Amino acid sequence: MTILTETAEKIKNMEIRGAGRIARAAALALKEEATSIDTDDIGEFNRRMNDAYETLYNTRPTAVSLPNALRLVMRYRAATVEDARKAIISNADNFISNSQNAVKKIGQIGAKRIKDGDTILTHCNSSAAAAIVEAAFKQGKNINVIATETRPRQQGYVTVDIMQKIGVPTTLILDSAVRYFMKDVDIVVVGADAITVNGSLINKVGTSQIALAAHEARVNLIVAAETYKFSPKTLLGDLVEIEERDPSEVLSPEMHIKWPGLIVRNPAFDVTPHQYIDLIITELGAIPPEMAFWVITEKLGLELEDSATNIK
Amino acid sequence: MTILTETAEKIKNMEIRGAGRIARAAALALKEEATSIDTDDIGEFNRRMNDAYETLYNTRPTAVSLPNALRLVMRYRAATVEDARKAIISNADNFISNSQNAVKKIGQIGAKRIKDGDTILTHCNSSAAAAIVEAAFKQGKNINVIATETRPRQQGYVTVDIMQKIGVPTTLILDSAVRYFMKDVDIVVVGADAITVNGSLINKVGTSQIALAAHEARVNLIVAAETYKFSPKTLLGDLVEIEERDPSEVLSPEMHIKWPGLIVRNPAFDVTPHQYIDLIITELGAIPPEMAFWVITEKLGLELEDSATNIK
Amino acid sequence: MTILTETAEKIKNMEIRGAGRIARAAALALKEEATSIDTDDIGEFNRRMNDAYETLYNTRPTAVSLPNALRLVMRYRAATVEDARKAIISNADNFISNSQNAVKKIGQIGAKRIKDGDTILTHCNSSAAAAIVEAAFKQGKNINVIATETRPRQQGYVTVDIMQKIGVPTTLILDSAVRYFMKDVDIVVVGADAITVNGSLINKVGTSQIALAAHEARVNLIVAAETYKFSPKTLLGDLVEIEERDPSEVLSPEMHIKWPGLIVRNPAFDVTPHQYIDLIITELGAIPPEMAFWVITEKLGLELEDSATNIK
Amino acid sequence: MTILTETAEKIKNMEIRGAGRIARAAALALKEEATSIDTDDIGEFNRRMNDAYETLYNTRPTAVSLPNALRLVMRYRAATVEDARKAIISNADNFISNSQNAVKKIGQIGAKRIKDGDTILTHCNSSAAAAIVEAAFKQGKNINVIATETRPRQQGYVTVDIMQKIGVPTTLILDSAVRYFMKDVDIVVVGADAITVNGSLINKVGTSQIALAAHEARVNLIVAAETYKFSPKTLLGDLVEIEERDPSEVLSPEMHIKWPGLIVRNPAFDVTPHQYIDLIITELGAIPPEMAFWVITEKLGLELEDSATNIK
Amino acid sequence: MTILTETAEKIKNMEIRGAGRIARAAALALKEEATSIDTDDIGEFNRRMNDAYETLYNTRPTAVSLPNALRLVMRYRAATVEDARKAIISNADNFISNSQNAVKKIGQIGAKRIKDGDTILTHCNSSAAAAIVEAAFKQGKNINVIATETRPRQQGYVTVDIMQKIGVPTTLILDSAVRYFMKDVDIVVVGADAITVNGSLINKVGTSQIALAAHEARVNLIVAAETYKFSPKTLLGDLVEIEERDPSEVLSPEMHIKWPGLIVRNPAFDVTPHQYIDLIITELGAIPPEMAFWVITEKLGLELEDSATNIK
Amino acid sequence: MTILTETAEKIKNMEIRGAGRIARAAALALKEEATSIDTDDIGEFNRRMNDAYETLYNTRPTAVSLPNALRLVMRYRAATVEDARKAIISNADNFISNSQNAVKKIGQIGAKRIKDGDTILTHCNSSAAAAIVEAAFKQGKNINVIATETRPRQQGYVTVDIMQKIGVPTTLILDSAVRYFMKDVDIVVVGADAITVNGSLINKVGTSQIALAAHEARVNLIVAAETYKFSPKTLLGDLVEIEERDPSEVLSPEMHIKWPGLIVRNPAFDVTPHQYIDLIITELGAIPPEMAFWVITEKLGLELEDSATNIK
Repeated sequence: MTILTETAEKIKNMEIRGAGRIARAAALALKEEATSIDTDDIGEFNRRMNDAYETLYNTRPTAVSLPNALRLVMRYRAATVEDARKAIISNADNFISNSQNAVKKIGQIGAKRIKDGDTILTHCNSSAAAAIVEAAFKQGKNINVIATETRPRQQGYVTVDIMQKIGVPTTLILDSAVRYFMKDVDIVVVGADAITVNGSLINKVGTSQIALAAHEARVNLIVAAETYKFSPKTLLGDLVEIEERDPSEVLSPEMHIKWPGLIVRNPAFDVTPHQYIDLIITELGAIPPEMAFWVITEKLGLELEDSATNIK
Repeated sequence: MTILTETAEKIKNMEIRGAGRIARAAALALKEEATSIDTDDIGEFNRRMNDAYETLYNTRPTAVSLPNALRLVMRYRAATVEDARKAIISNADNFISNSQNAVKKIGQIGAKRIKDGDTILTHCNSSAAAAIVEAAFKQGKNINVIATETRPRQQGYVTVDIMQKIGVPTTLILDSAVRYFMKDVDIVVVGADAITVNGSLINKVGTSQIALAAHEARVNLIVAAETYKFSPKTLLGDLVEIEERDPSEVLSPEMHIKWPGLIVRNPAFDVTPHQYIDLIITELGAIPPEMAFWVITEKLGLELEDSATNIK
Repeated sequence: MTILTETAEKIKNMEIRGAGRIARAAALALKEEATSIDTDDIGEFNRRMNDAYETLYNTRPTAVSLPNALRLVMRYRAATVEDARKAIISNADNFISNSQNAVKKIGQIGAKRIKDGDTILTHCNSSAAAAIVEAAFKQGKNINVIATETRPRQQGYVTVDIMQKIGVPTTLILDSAVRYFMKDVDIVVVGADAITVNGSLINKVGTSQIALAAHEARVNLIVAAETYKFSPKTLLGDLVEIEERDPSEVLSPEMHIKWPGLIVRNPAFDVTPHQYIDLIITELGAIPPEMAFWVITEKLGLELEDSATNIK
Repeated sequence: MTILTETAEKIKNMEIRGAGRIARAAALALKEEATSIDTDDIGEFNRRMNDAYETLYNTRPTAVSLPNALRLVMRYRAATVEDARKAIISNADNFISNSQNAVKKIGQIGAKRIKDGDTILTHCNSSAAAAIVEAAFKQGKNINVIATETRPRQQGYVTVDIMQKIGVPTTLILDSAVRYFMKDVDIVVVGADAITVNGSLINKVGTSQIALAAHEARVNLIVAAETYKFSPKTLLGDLVEIEERDPSEVLSPEMHIKWPGLIVRNPAFDVTPHQYIDLIITELGAIPPEMAFWVITEKLGLELEDSATNIK
Repeated sequence: MTILTETAEKIKNMEIRGAGRIARAAALALKEEATSIDTDDIGEFNRRMNDAYETLYNTRPTAVSLPNALRLVMRYRAATVEDARKAIISNADNFISNSQNAVKKIGQIGAKRIKDGDTILTHCNSSAAAAIVEAAFKQGKNINVIATETRPRQQGYVTVDIMQKIGVPTTLILDSAVRYFMKDVDIVVVGADAITVNGSLINKVGTSQIALAAHEARVNLIVAAETYKFSPKTLLGDLVEIEERDPSEVLSPEMHIKWPGLIVRNPAFDVTPHQYIDLIITELGAIPPEMAFWVITEKLGLELEDSATNIK
Repeated sequence: MTILTETAEKIKNMEIRGAGRIARAAALALKEEATSIDTDDIGEFNRRMNDAYETLYNTRPTAVSLPNALRLVMRYRAATVEDARKAIISNADNFISNSQNAVKKIGQIGAKRIKDGDTILTHCNSSAAAAIVEAAFKQGKNINVIATETRPRQQGYVTVDIMQKIGVPTTLILDSAVRYFMKDVDIVVVGADAITVNGSLINKVGTSQIALAAHEARVNLIVAAETYKFSPKTLLGDLVEIEERDPSEVLSPEMHIKWPGLIVRNPAFDVTPHQYIDLIITELGAIPPEMAFWVITEKLGLELEDSATNIK
């Protein structure tokens, strides 16, 4: 089994998880493939690279970071195999390095939005959002965090765990209690699963009602999002599909048996309109949400005209 | 032990629970006391009735239904013990009967707001809100219910149970998923723990963010509330105290041990501003929330001028 | 044929039309009936009056002014036929006189809200709204009116006609152009078909989007409504039924034939939420919309407790 | 010169100032007049009392508290001069006593809305608003006050002076800086010059933009207002006239000379819509703003039907 | 008569109508002119092309698509006549081809925003908006359309006609009934007459109040607009002039005679603020409205610096 | 002392003031320095130019226009001193010339947004905002201006003075009276101290509550801002620091002595969210506020990737 097929397999069966890790593994696999293709015929090289691209792409066709990684690595135009190989290796190395540094840079940039004395509310768990809090705390700012429990999988506990380790004073609340505590909150910081072309945010279900409650109380909400979270497909009108997870996350088997007619709905994400977002903190800087369009067209290698025909 | 002290004891140790049951038990206890006081001296009779009033009042001083029941039963002006006794008995009987019928009447009145084909969202569990759904369903209206889980005690399960028994198609969702589903909702129906003088609603935590999401989507919210839920004290400026329940409802002991520094906040209720409420359905009719003032001054036996000095 | 049956017939076949005229005709018919019943038996008298009440009530069961008139005339408690007759005659005379004066009084009260130099936007045609404009104009205020066309029956033309006769400078616009002109408007004045218990307004379709556009631009909207337009049934939770009129008002027969599958929807009214209404001008004074509850319970003879059982 | 003419004179030339003082002086003058009229003819007595009423009323026809005081004192129906005199004296004594206690009662009621740790923003100077702060502070609550300067007459200095004497920590800010500080504010407390029938507030210019900024940030605003500040005339549609004060308050004479063409506008008050007001604290209790209607009709002696014809 | 003068004539006298057709005719005329100029002197060639440009530009100076077409065709820099001619021909061919495909591409992109089961509200008639509905319907989505009548010229009938031919279930409503039906609407799709630099929409009068009603009910509105509808002049601060059409469209001659003093206002368009627009679907992709700026500066050949001096 | 050190000194001690003047002086100083450095070694030249850059930058590190000017002048890449010198001179000349013309261009562009008959409200004093009014007035438009006093330094007087000289009819009002007059306002025009990356406006304290009141009344607000006012640092998450000026501007020394415990807060600026801004008028054109990002990245010479590491 080649590294390519092995990586594809691991992404498919979710051995490799998380937007960043998937993206970097795919970039690495393309790089290895480029290195190992043994031909001097640029036509054949290109064909085989395209096959590799397709193989990886099809492992999780609804992800956002994966096609972004693939497209950026595959941006090359070369007359010889040698040139092509060099370009792909360079692209892959750049992507991996940028991606690894992204969270840290987001932390540094976002921390400037946190003021001494701030109470920060967060939802679910996001390493980029946590990096902002951590950077601010390490700058000596006297801050504290309110973390929601985040039913059904209690990812809020992961946030609590991180904060306890760093030493940031933390309060845990129910998802239902967000509006109750909003008057004490200075800023909301959340992560992102995806960002659409008009700057709307796809994130853990519940984020949009937190954003609404923040907006009602004139509290700013910032999003921590690596640029590979921006969804090029939305430029073509595609709606980001909201995954609906297993009802068993919500209700125990006994209860399911007790109420056979009951429907349980368990969407994993919801959509926060860009009007409720102050800034998106990326590794490239703090940008207004409407500039998602610019990230997609200028930074993710997407030509608008091309896009209308053949983007994946 | 007299019925009075027994009842007081049971209310205090929460053997008797629920706003309606507490109120009716207290009314009954006053009635029994009035029957059993063995004197012809109206002065003495009044004193002993006042003692009974105080005894019951002090069992749960922050409840809303209890003082309403006591005040309504104690509204009498009599020259003789016989007259006083008659008045108290009549008052108590009336209160008990009205209170018992209230939920049914609310069901009948509120059901008219439900249209054929409606999707009704509800939160926590309220017998009055359930009565509205049940009455509408029994009128042959083709309706379905979305029930929130209602962390931390999953009272949404009680709602599901009632709906399953009646046969209303029901969907269970997470508290975090309310805004996600709001576009499919035609009307929100919730119960009440208390209603303040300006029509704001004290109810299970999470209600206020549901109301906000309904308002954002132009979905009406109606409240099902017996008149004894209206809080006379708020007329005097009192804020309704929000009970904060035990952290163990939210977090397991193991987790508490793991994160010794973690604060867990567990408010049981929140406040929904009257601007987000379309109507309050009481047993007396459907009233605009601002008319809470009228219910308190006209129906709960409170004179505004008196109130400023000696209300309990 | 008695006056009673003749009146009932004319109301049913719409010979007698208009909320005010129907109400007064019904009051007169009850008065005539009370005069002509030839008996000394108060029991029989009451029964026959009740029959008359039922006959009239059933002519147009969804109207608002008719039951209000009937209820107010039938408010009597008498031991003898003579007393009952007197009371009914007096009630009928009062109702008719109040109703006849109502529009004029509304004009006088409402005119005070119009300032010199104001541009007033109105929709459809309402004699009470027109009375406000006329009174303000006759006080010498330099005002002008913007009238919407009001499709499909062009009642805006009736408004234009009245304004042209009085001499008020008038501009006619399309229903679609309301928001375009809203920045030039100082106040919106509309009539009412019905007012619900929480002060929401049932009026010609289009009113609610005018109200919304006024609200968006911080322009006040006042409603001119005689108290017999207030709907007691809404106190019991009843929704005011929105009449859907014949599609032929909207589309010509030729077009209907051309597009056989086309659905044409033609609701005659819509609901304006009370949040978008500054004041309701009645013949009793200028009242906040939430006080509709008070008009219904205090001025339209409705006891709230009774209401929950036997109101028609 | 009688007490009546002397009082009228002093009100007219503004020797007697302030809504409360004017009202009490007028009540006292009517009482003295009733005592001193030397006749047994009830007709003559009534005529002379009416003259007194007119004399006082005409001293400041646009005030709000004056006609309220006069109407309440003149509410009597008597067959003999003795009875009439008694009634007037009793009315006047009651009015004066209630009015004197009103500020204190408002303080006690309103203080319950202030929580330990609150930052309270206030505008201009109001003895009733100050009473709320003082009562809360004397209850041992740890509070602090932000006072606006209140151009052009710097009444904010009076508020600062009161607060400094009581010992409440106080911050002075510019009128322009309100929105800048609003995020730090827990509650806004202001006084009232007048309250209209739908609960809108007439108060020192600037109040309405403070209310707007509070609303934008989900900060509650409460109004401290004695019931004699409620304006019965607005029930009849009257707009409360906004006094425009002398330009010299705003601009020095030198500047006026420098810019001869410059217009200076100096309205003393503005109108805060009731949607931006949480509660009005009166001496009778905390009421929703829409209940201004009820205060006017039930507590200020105004019959709605009468009102439409002959209210002053 | 040359093709140039003939085309100019036909645009001027409105034989050639419609934003797309005008633009393409003008591009073709420039191409023909470039082909037919018989000179080798590049200076003369440029002068004559500029004359052609001016001739065409002046036919309808307030249009939006015409100058966009002219500017894009005239983007060339050449040393020889041959090169210039080639560039112009190529520019013209590209523009015409892109423009012809634009509606179809918009249909494909926009259709992705339509979900199975959606009710789509539209206003007036737009071929681009209709293309979105058609594409979604042909994808097998079960959708239905609500079309407004669109007074005064009933363009809604054109929409109905298209929908009937395609087979999409359609409902026709009055312009006034939009808010009444908004709760049943899933998405609003409209066309554009012009798009301003900040993404505001100029479209058939009534569009802005539809957008407002959609916003109130959390219903998304998308705009279908070819990029040549974007107005470069607005970058220079120009307001898009709103055409006011003949009053006879609104009122019959008889009525005009009957009411000689009546003013009839008939604006053809209104302005929808970008805050009420979710996305603009162009042939280049789905873009946030604020990116209108980018379309104008990047895709319509406008250099921002140049623009400040010499844009037409 | 060289021109460089002299300029640096003057900027530091505020002899040179005003965003434009500081920027131009700094550009000129760099140009002079480039001219006077006497070396052929490009390495040494670059080092000395960098020293000059640092010297000037450190005079007022929190200003916005200064680093913008420095960065734009220092954009050169040259192999020889001669080329470097030429580039710097050319950059400086361009910057100075653009900057000098900016206000005039803003006037011309912005004047197109002013319509005949408009009432324009402005706050504080801004030469760019004044240029818009002046240009509109000189085009013969019949306009008038409402100027706020602008406590504590009364910069509104400067605006009044300019308007009086031009001849524009002007009204002076208190800062507190803005909402009172907003209904008479057609457009708000203000200047800028800085613009952040998401288009939020830093301007004289009070601007944000004016913007809020304009938004509430659907009145557009436009900002007149030279591009050198846009803050590159905000791209990196930096908050624009709000200067707090001396309390003595607000309160006289006597008062400070009288109230020793009183805190006086005197922020000079506040932040207006971009949602309340219709357009920013720059010398490059009218841009949507969200395009601040574009101005910073495209026009102020800032590479986004570079920015994340080494921007000053």
